[in-house]
Amino acid sequence: MRNKENYPKWKARLHEVIYEADTPVGKTFDIALLVVILISVALVMMESISWMLEKYAFEFYVAEWVITAIFTIEYILRIISINQPKKYIFSFYGIVDLLSTIPSYIGFLFGGANLLFAIRALRLLRVFRVLKISRYIGESQKLISALRNSKAKILVFLFAVVIICVIAGTLMHLVEGEAGGFDNIPLSIYWCIVTLTTVGFGDIAPITPLGRFIASFIMITGYGIIAVPTGIVSSEYSKAMDTPKNTQVCPNCAESKHLDNADFCHSCGYKIND
Amino acid sequence: MRNKENYPKWKARLHEVIYEADTPVGKTFDIALLVVILISVALVMMESISWMLEKYAFEFYVAEWVITAIFTIEYILRIISINQPKKYIFSFYGIVDLLSTIPSYIGFLFGGANLLFAIRALRLLRVFRVLKISRYIGESQKLISALRNSKAKILVFLFAVVIICVIAGTLMHLVEGEAGGFDNIPLSIYWCIVTLTTVGFGDIAPITPLGRFIASFIMITGYGIIAVPTGIVSSEYSKAMDTPKNTQVCPNCAESKHLDNADFCHSCGYKIND
Amino acid sequence: MRNKENYPKWKARLHEVIYEADTPVGKTFDIALLVVILISVALVMMESISWMLEKYAFEFYVAEWVITAIFTIEYILRIISINQPKKYIFSFYGIVDLLSTIPSYIGFLFGGANLLFAIRALRLLRVFRVLKISRYIGESQKLISALRNSKAKILVFLFAVVIICVIAGTLMHLVEGEAGGFDNIPLSIYWCIVTLTTVGFGDIAPITPLGRFIASFIMITGYGIIAVPTGIVSSEYSKAMDTPKNTQVCPNCAESKHLDNADFCHSCGYKIND
Amino acid sequence: MRNKENYPKWKARLHEVIYEADTPVGKTFDIALLVVILISVALVMMESISWMLEKYAFEFYVAEWVITAIFTIEYILRIISINQPKKYIFSFYGIVDLLSTIPSYIGFLFGGANLLFAIRALRLLRVFRVLKISRYIGESQKLISALRNSKAKILVFLFAVVIICVIAGTLMHLVEGEAGGFDNIPLSIYWCIVTLTTVGFGDIAPITPLGRFIASFIMITGYGIIAVPTGIVSSEYSKAMDTPKNTQVCPNCAESKHLDNADFCHSCGYKIND
Repeated sequence: MRNKENYPKWKARLHEVIYEADTPVGKTFDIALLVVILISVALVMMESISWMLEKYAFEFYVAEWVITAIFTIEYILRIISINQPKKYIFSFYGIVDLLSTIPSYIGFLFGGANLLFAIRALRLLRVFRVLKISRYIGESQKLISALRNSKAKILVFLFAVVIICVIAGTLMHLVEGEAGGFDNIPLSIYWCIVTLTTVGFGDIAPITPLGRFIASFIMITGYGIIAVPTGIVSSEYSKAMDTPKNTQVCPNCAESKHLDNADFCHSCGYKIND
Repeated sequence: MRNKENYPKWKARLHEVIYEADTPVGKTFDIALLVVILISVALVMMESISWMLEKYAFEFYVAEWVITAIFTIEYILRIISINQPKKYIFSFYGIVDLLSTIPSYIGFLFGGANLLFAIRALRLLRVFRVLKISRYIGESQKLISALRNSKAKILVFLFAVVIICVIAGTLMHLVEGEAGGFDNIPLSIYWCIVTLTTVGFGDIAPITPLGRFIASFIMITGYGIIAVPTGIVSSEYSKAMDTPKNTQVCPNCAESKHLDNADFCHSCGYKIND
Repeated sequence: MRNKENYPKWKARLHEVIYEADTPVGKTFDIALLVVILISVALVMMESISWMLEKYAFEFYVAEWVITAIFTIEYILRIISINQPKKYIFSFYGIVDLLSTIPSYIGFLFGGANLLFAIRALRLLRVFRVLKISRYIGESQKLISALRNSKAKILVFLFAVVIICVIAGTLMHLVEGEAGGFDNIPLSIYWCIVTLTTVGFGDIAPITPLGRFIASFIMITGYGIIAVPTGIVSSEYSKAMDTPKNTQVCPNCAESKHLDNADFCHSCGYKIND
Repeated sequence: MRNKENYPKWKARLHEVIYEADTPVGKTFDIALLVVILISVALVMMESISWMLEKYAFEFYVAEWVITAIFTIEYILRIISINQPKKYIFSFYGIVDLLSTIPSYIGFLFGGANLLFAIRALRLLRVFRVLKISRYIGESQKLISALRNSKAKILVFLFAVVIICVIAGTLMHLVEGEAGGFDNIPLSIYWCIVTLTTVGFGDIAPITPLGRFIASFIMITGYGIIAVPTGIVSSEYSKAMDTPKNTQVCPNCAESKHLDNADFCHSCGYKIND
């Protein structure tokens, strides 16, 4: 893919450090970046606590710009070290990286404390990068492929859950009215979602006998149908695990299911792996 | 089934547009109808919010009648485009379509704002039609057949859950009495369902040590038995996914269910796999 | 088991009606009894609602004795129609039947309204009989055998959950103290069970930052380990379903896995079922 | 492992009683120890209830020292009866045993009621020993191996849950602000964990329409993704149960994992099944 000829050596070296995780230097870079991201996330969190913001206003300001500087340098390095910068810039991580770098500059240019904070919180999107650690854990591939296979079916299911909530929420609004806090249909649907998903905050709760009777039905339904997504994922994941990595077919007896590390066919003893 | 001879061409064309989803025009009709349904659902929801109803009373009135007109036309078209109108009229969707069309007419004839609204909410039943989209998503068939197989067993399970709640609710009423809000047995059973299904509103909660001890038992039981419906659906779905790989039909006895590796029909012994 | 000779015919006939569910008369008896049980349960529930008890005191009194009379007659019939009455009397259902019959007599002899009600609630135990309906639903056998196989493992799991709650509850008491309502260790353990099982009443909730941090850990743990009982039941139930009903081994090719309704071996076409 | 020669007989005997559970005496010792542990745990719990501590101060004091004496003797016996005391002292149970023995001595030496209690609660760690009973229940091995295989994947999953909570919590803080109690980001993240894990205390709950809309999304997400850990454990446990039917060890290369129907070793091709 990458044309190696018209590609200076320092660029290749930089690419290895920044984009690849196989070499020791690449791993070190990854971990250092994660630490910076976690610190920046912690900073945004702490800034949201009012007494902390008041007490350490200056420290936050300094840390703010240090983080911004690091992110800016990283963003520039990522662009110059890759051969097709557009591919990175418009990728998911490229956009996240940009969004998490610019807030401080926007704040510097336009000011506005409250809005500023909202924009700065975009930096939290960086935590997605932490998920990259999962590369280091084996068999994630199978889990992800199982989730991908389940996605459409789980979405249909969650969609059906929302429709049940719309019907049941309207019913509860008609039955309970404003007495139990079911003031309007959207609010009743919100309560229904809270109940069917077994969260149950309790800020809104039925108080009429009939409302409680219907609520019991909704809860038992929710308890029964939570089985559906679980059943889907279990089955898909089981299937993904069953799919043998070793897809070799024995040339002697045509047996196709072998253990992953098999060197000989378990059915006829023929050598299948050199 | 449909006698094609005494069937005018425009009727067949209309039938294709309204009832079938395979042709581009049929798909467009389906999607347009869904949009109208979602708008009508959104209208009913917004009308339930009191400040919105006051502010936009006239707009709601107009939208109301536009939707009613569209639904009326659709209902009439559905009846005249089908060969056996009775079959449609008394089908599930036929009844839902009628119920969601007439409320405005009833309101016009008899008035009565509160009751009127309750009837108009019937229009929400139309959202079931949205579920038809699931046709476009593959393998739903297997999921539905798994759910159908699980239904009876899950009902028995939910039934057992209700019986546990009746016993435990009575016990809690005797132990807690009116102190913790367990005023009578039906209310205690309601609390038990709220707790066993892990919803836990908190509007009623035990306050005596013994009551809390029994509540702990109920909660741990609920945590343990949530596994049962999940196990049922998982297994049934796994089975449904495993089953129909060998879709060969025996040319001798027309048996269609064979084991994946079957060479001979298990029903008549005829060779089905060369 | 039952010695048919020294057994009068009316007794055998009565036994068939009362104890067996295969004959139409037996089924009718079962259903009639269920109706009476459900009525008696409904009565106990309604009596617990104070305004109902006040208004319909006399009606409850009459219904009370009618139900008691029916249960007394049924109990006597069950004893005289069986050959080994002791076996019935000391069986689970025998004891439940007795306990649900005597409360009215005890109340008549000794009086005492409050205690009386507590005893009368024993009648609710009869609802267990309703579970017998599950006989009419196929494959319950496999579900029950799966649950029996899972029982020991799920108990160990729930036991581990309780131990986690003891440790975490003590920790929460030390961290939160009386501020958040964690007054003593047993109460904190109760809160931990409420939280780990994802019920979450909210009557007790942490308010210190550290308490909330630990609570987050407890909740995420609870969310993660709910998978364990489900996994156990799923696997056991899958295994129970896989165990082929048709355990015949083909006498020709020794293939042992056949479809339940197989008449011919699917592997060699040999006739295995006459 | 244990050099039997330079090992006095009483030491071997003591080792058998204390460390092994196969002999009747060993079992009796295990059970006696469990009873003492449960009593000591109950004592710590009761001491935390203020009115009990006031009323039975002296009884607690005596019981305290009796338990401490028993634990001290047990700890000494464990050290002298084992050949490599260091291995025990620095093992998990060794440290727990020490930590649960010393609190009373520390309290005696330094005093300080509040701190003292916190330290004494360490004794609760002993309850882990109760888990050893699970040894007596078969097939725990397979469950534990399934959990071990699932661990890494479930941790990645819970990690992803935390990241979702960080993003969603920040969003909720920006949307709800201090109105609904979402005062700062850490608190909002705490609320998100409470919600996503379907616990739902209700001490903090969104009150703005937009906040409730986002909360609905979070709840439905939580309801959908609870399927993931369950799917993982189900599959791993199914696999663990399926695996070791063929327990043959290849006589040629000592490979022990073979497919159930293997006739030849998959590793060296040696015939293992006649």
